[in-house]
Amino acid sequence: MPVRARSLTLSLLAFALASASLRAEEGMWTFDNLPTKKIAEAYHWAPDQAWLDHVRLSALRFPGGSGSFVSRDGLVLTNHHVGRGWIQRVSSKEHDYIKNGFAAATREQEIKVPGLELMTLMAMEDITARLARLVKPGTPEQETQKLRDTEIEKIKKAMQEKTGLTCEHVTLYQGGEHWIYSYKKHTDVRLVFAPEQQIAFFGGDFDNFTYPRHNLDFSVFRVYEDGKPYQPQQFLKWTQTGLKAGDLTFVTGHPGRTSRQNTLAQMLNARDTAFPLRLKAMERRKATMVAYAKTSPEAARQVNTAIFGIENGLKATHGYWSGLKNKEAMARVEAAEKELRAKVAADPKLAAEASGSWARIEAALKVSEGMAKESLVVGTANSTLLGYALALVRIADEEALPSEQRLPEYSDANLKAAKARLGIQTPYYPEQERFMFTRGLEEAAAELGPQHPFVQAMLGDQAPAEVAKAAVEGSKLSDPAVRKALLAGGRKALAECKDPMIALARKLDPMARSLRQRQEEQVDSVIKEHGARIAKARFAAYGKNTYPDATFTLRLTYGPVTEFPANGTLIQPFTTFGGLYDRHDGWGGNAAAAHDGAWTLPQRWIDRRGAVNPAMPFNFVHSVDIIGGNSGSPVIDRKGELVGLIFDGNIDMLPGNFFYDGSNNRGVSVDALGLLHALDKVYGATGLVGELTGK
Amino acid sequence: MPVRARSLTLSLLAFALASASLRAEEGMWTFDNLPTKKIAEAYHWAPDQAWLDHVRLSALRFPGGSGSFVSRDGLVLTNHHVGRGWIQRVSSKEHDYIKNGFAAATREQEIKVPGLELMTLMAMEDITARLARLVKPGTPEQETQKLRDTEIEKIKKAMQEKTGLTCEHVTLYQGGEHWIYSYKKHTDVRLVFAPEQQIAFFGGDFDNFTYPRHNLDFSVFRVYEDGKPYQPQQFLKWTQTGLKAGDLTFVTGHPGRTSRQNTLAQMLNARDTAFPLRLKAMERRKATMVAYAKTSPEAARQVNTAIFGIENGLKATHGYWSGLKNKEAMARVEAAEKELRAKVAADPKLAAEASGSWARIEAALKVSEGMAKESLVVGTANSTLLGYALALVRIADEEALPSEQRLPEYSDANLKAAKARLGIQTPYYPEQERFMFTRGLEEAAAELGPQHPFVQAMLGDQAPAEVAKAAVEGSKLSDPAVRKALLAGGRKALAECKDPMIALARKLDPMARSLRQRQEEQVDSVIKEHGARIAKARFAAYGKNTYPDATFTLRLTYGPVTEFPANGTLIQPFTTFGGLYDRHDGWGGNAAAAHDGAWTLPQRWIDRRGAVNPAMPFNFVHSVDIIGGNSGSPVIDRKGELVGLIFDGNIDMLPGNFFYDGSNNRGVSVDALGLLHALDKVYGATGLVGELTGK
Repeated sequence: MPVRARSLTLSLLAFALASASLRAEEGMWTFDNLPTKKIAEAYHWAPDQAWLDHVRLSALRFPGGSGSFVSRDGLVLTNHHVGRGWIQRVSSKEHDYIKNGFAAATREQEIKVPGLELMTLMAMEDITARLARLVKPGTPEQETQKLRDTEIEKIKKAMQEKTGLTCEHVTLYQGGEHWIYSYKKHTDVRLVFAPEQQIAFFGGDFDNFTYPRHNLDFSVFRVYEDGKPYQPQQFLKWTQTGLKAGDLTFVTGHPGRTSRQNTLAQMLNARDTAFPLRLKAMERRKATMVAYAKTSPEAARQVNTAIFGIENGLKATHGYWSGLKNKEAMARVEAAEKELRAKVAADPKLAAEASGSWARIEAALKVSEGMAKESLVVGTANSTLLGYALALVRIADEEALPSEQRLPEYSDANLKAAKARLGIQTPYYPEQERFMFTRGLEEAAAELGPQHPFVQAMLGDQAPAEVAKAAVEGSKLSDPAVRKALLAGGRKALAECKDPMIALARKLDPMARSLRQRQEEQVDSVIKEHGARIAKARFAAYGKNTYPDATFTLRLTYGPVTEFPANGTLIQPFTTFGGLYDRHDGWGGNAAAAHDGAWTLPQRWIDRRGAVNPAMPFNFVHSVDIIGGNSGSPVIDRKGELVGLIFDGNIDMLPGNFFYDGSNNRGVSVDALGLLHALDKVYGATGLVGELTGK
Repeated sequence: MPVRARSLTLSLLAFALASASLRAEEGMWTFDNLPTKKIAEAYHWAPDQAWLDHVRLSALRFPGGSGSFVSRDGLVLTNHHVGRGWIQRVSSKEHDYIKNGFAAATREQEIKVPGLELMTLMAMEDITARLARLVKPGTPEQETQKLRDTEIEKIKKAMQEKTGLTCEHVTLYQGGEHWIYSYKKHTDVRLVFAPEQQIAFFGGDFDNFTYPRHNLDFSVFRVYEDGKPYQPQQFLKWTQTGLKAGDLTFVTGHPGRTSRQNTLAQMLNARDTAFPLRLKAMERRKATMVAYAKTSPEAARQVNTAIFGIENGLKATHGYWSGLKNKEAMARVEAAEKELRAKVAADPKLAAEASGSWARIEAALKVSEGMAKESLVVGTANSTLLGYALALVRIADEEALPSEQRLPEYSDANLKAAKARLGIQTPYYPEQERFMFTRGLEEAAAELGPQHPFVQAMLGDQAPAEVAKAAVEGSKLSDPAVRKALLAGGRKALAECKDPMIALARKLDPMARSLRQRQEEQVDSVIKEHGARIAKARFAAYGKNTYPDATFTLRLTYGPVTEFPANGTLIQPFTTFGGLYDRHDGWGGNAAAAHDGAWTLPQRWIDRRGAVNPAMPFNFVHSVDIIGGNSGSPVIDRKGELVGLIFDGNIDMLPGNFFYDGSNNRGVSVDALGLLHALDKVYGATGLVGELTGK
């Protein structure tokens, strides 16, 4: 067969059989349990212990995200959106580093970020066996738990004293394994570089979750120790060769939370009940706001940002939902559950523990479905003031109880923040409040019917508009001083208070509590208990052949740089600097006017256009298994060098919460060579480039 | 309110209320009936008669497409894909103008294209009243038709003699109006310029129907008369200013066919029965081919192009189908039908004619639904040889009948071509034939059940694999000489023929004919008759307040250059030269290797990259109402100048066959300034650029 024909064969088949031929590399693997055999089979190479230690010790945990050491002198790379809050914290009215970016020309100019703590995972110790030995057969569950907790604290304390590290107890496989992870904590972290928000988040919420993408979503910090740049044990060298399509990549980072152990019934419930209801509620809220926006230009001004936020929420929620509607993926979930149930049924010990758990969860979900509409509607009916009132009423009652008996949001740990929130002055528009509350009450009546106790309690024999008008006009709760006074006055002050919103809150409170109690007792606790039993059975059946659900601890995932099918065609694996300018130019010479400048480039980028190589990669997609918390994760090649920086996934990544489907799920990263090119050609950050490239 | 806040208001609302705020400009208007009042209200400007005459006389009809005069000396602009067949015709083994493009350096080098005829619409005359006067009330329908046909021929002949033009009878509004359109026919047309197919159709079938898009889909011809360049009465000057987002555009051209008068029942039938069945059949055919492709690399080579073709068909079919699933659009169709039915019911004359027609069509569709599965399955079961056999059997029988009694495909007009097709040698692979036929028979048995007469006739008591093996191995019909001999031998030769495929075809033929007859008598003829009645009633009720369905005659549509929502974000209105290079570069440095080079640029484009302005527009989308046949249409601005060249629609344009939904439906055009830029900077076609710009 001629070579030309063969190449045609392979390339077309790759398209026709896309889902079969892509190497879908599922798994957020722990560092003690990487499937090296599988990697070696697929890529003729796999990490060894030295490589693993190198990338682990180069990794950093940020609050809510990930990062990595990238220079001998402690430079740290993460996303702009992971660093954003910290950049904000060191900004001022005079120095808006979010809008204008920041570049330290010398080490002296690096700005110390108060409160920012980064963690390196120095060691991991499996204490599962040690905990198991503690417990004699027949010990009651509560006593077992206590014994364990005490032992864990003891181990942690001993380790901490011995190593000087920060030790955390980590539960993997829903309790199948217990570990102590020991971190070196870095507390002197300084801001070195941040680009303008406009290029870090180019295309804004419009382009969020989408690809092709053009975000220079990075920021650079430096760790100091004893007032001097910290020299980490390991750091990632910057690639000099970059990536090609098909190249294998690794990602270290801290995926936050996944729900991949959920039962099929839970996923079907999410697909058929929970998500449709949530989407309906969001659509309804959007429609209400749009209707209000139409009443006047001022009204539109008030709610535009909120409408925009809902639009984005809808995009993400549709992303999750459409994943659940993927029949092939759901068939795999179903098959896996069938297999596990057969294994459980075949093992008397497992069967005694868990064989009834699927049915119990299903029954609980039925209860949940039955009360879903009420749970959604019985509430503050779009009213901000009623929200304040409900919080005031509840805090006064809850404060009288011991912390552990309160609603969790008012426990000792949370009470101060809850009270503080009530004292904050936020923009308040009586017309908007009345409009939203009226609609909220109308919808409640339409959804639940006029005879429902909640509707009766709110409306009596009045119309929604009347109730809303009277309550909004009669209430003083829009004034933070009034709310603070009521907080301070406690139960007594509230008892004397004639505010109509407080009166409504008193009627709402018991109904909302009762629904919540039913949800907790008949649904949530059942799902928690039987979910844990199933998880235990799964670990007993499969052990460590698979990876544990995400726990915001260090994991490793891998897969190739590769295209994906979308928008009726194939989406290219890389975007380029030329593509960035195209997304700016494509609004017909007036990008600044289009959609409030979502695709307007910072002036610096327009000025420096001539210096930039348009063919240079900017962002890329790769087939890796990531989720929220992986933001700021380094992308690493076989040599252990930095080739990219994870900052998002495409819309098909969202269902990764429930299951991994490699046909379309892609991580989205900043290209490391592209990042360097921008620092060099656009920002002229010669010193930083020199340090990053080791020159 | 500060200006900044106001601009935020408007831009965000434009997004939130996208479908409401876009000016969806529906209509393929005839030149005698442009809604100038509506245009003037929306755009503070509308075409006058001089403008209309100018653009009409600049327009040209191509075989199957559209074009326009663009220079004083008769240069003609159309799409590459409209000119493709003609460029092919003047190509040779030595000169592959499709692959390499063509540029005439002098007029002497322009290549005459045999057979290519272009038409300019010089005059239109409404003869509706004249035909109506012919017919006395009470004349039987058949006699009326005869009278009319004679009169139309008489008028055409008189006009042709008087003007020397080519006169065509045009029926609008399904018979509501009759016109004579008089064309100047141009028969000496020469090829002047064609770019490489690879840039004209950049991204190939992958990017087809999608946007963002980067196709330089144009070719240039010149009309000659008496051996000299023809000087048209009117031609379109090339813009010097180009387009901005929001600019109003007009498109003249020849939309081929639309089905917008279909009843709601027909659309629901298409949505719920016809398209799902068609998609299922396509998916099944694809699956069969993919399964065959997996049997060996050689098998894959044989069927790859076919798989690819099915993929593209699936993309288009899903496009049509998803349009029909648009609830808002279907609600508008429903409301319009309800209104028309009320008008018909209120008018005794209309009611007598058409009030029962909706129910009759619905009943016919029920019949169609009942036999849909059989219609799809009873056939040649993926077998090429059985297809030959059926044609041979039928031709022998049909030839014995007078032409008007035969199946239309074997009437005198078509018989020669049908016979010729049987004599052509095409690639034949016995293994593939056996595989496909086996699957086809298996599927027929699965779909219809083992007792169905068709399944019984094909299989008897044998298994599909056995039947297929015996028939394929025993048949000689893969040899064109054998087929030709059977054709020549007619009924007698067939009667003596022992070929197993002929035996199967004899069993299949009566069953397939009977299904076809039922479809024609009980479905198609009913829909035709009652569809015409409804159309007449619609014209009686609404007259010319609306536009007629497309008829491949000259129409005008208009609307602004504007973005659309897709892929989770907003798609920019323009693509740029920079975006073209990004789509080439984005495969990670190996565009040539990716998908057989679908996004590889011609070498000339790589060599000349430095001379190109990356911010120059390349393609753009605009909100215009176009359909197949509009290919090659000029895009014109208020000044009557050429600003673009239609070459496609986005995927949301496809449902335009059924209805126009302006929220997403967009025409896709080459930007006129971009085209000139390419001619100048990439091709160095100085002479052509000079003539086009009048310099």
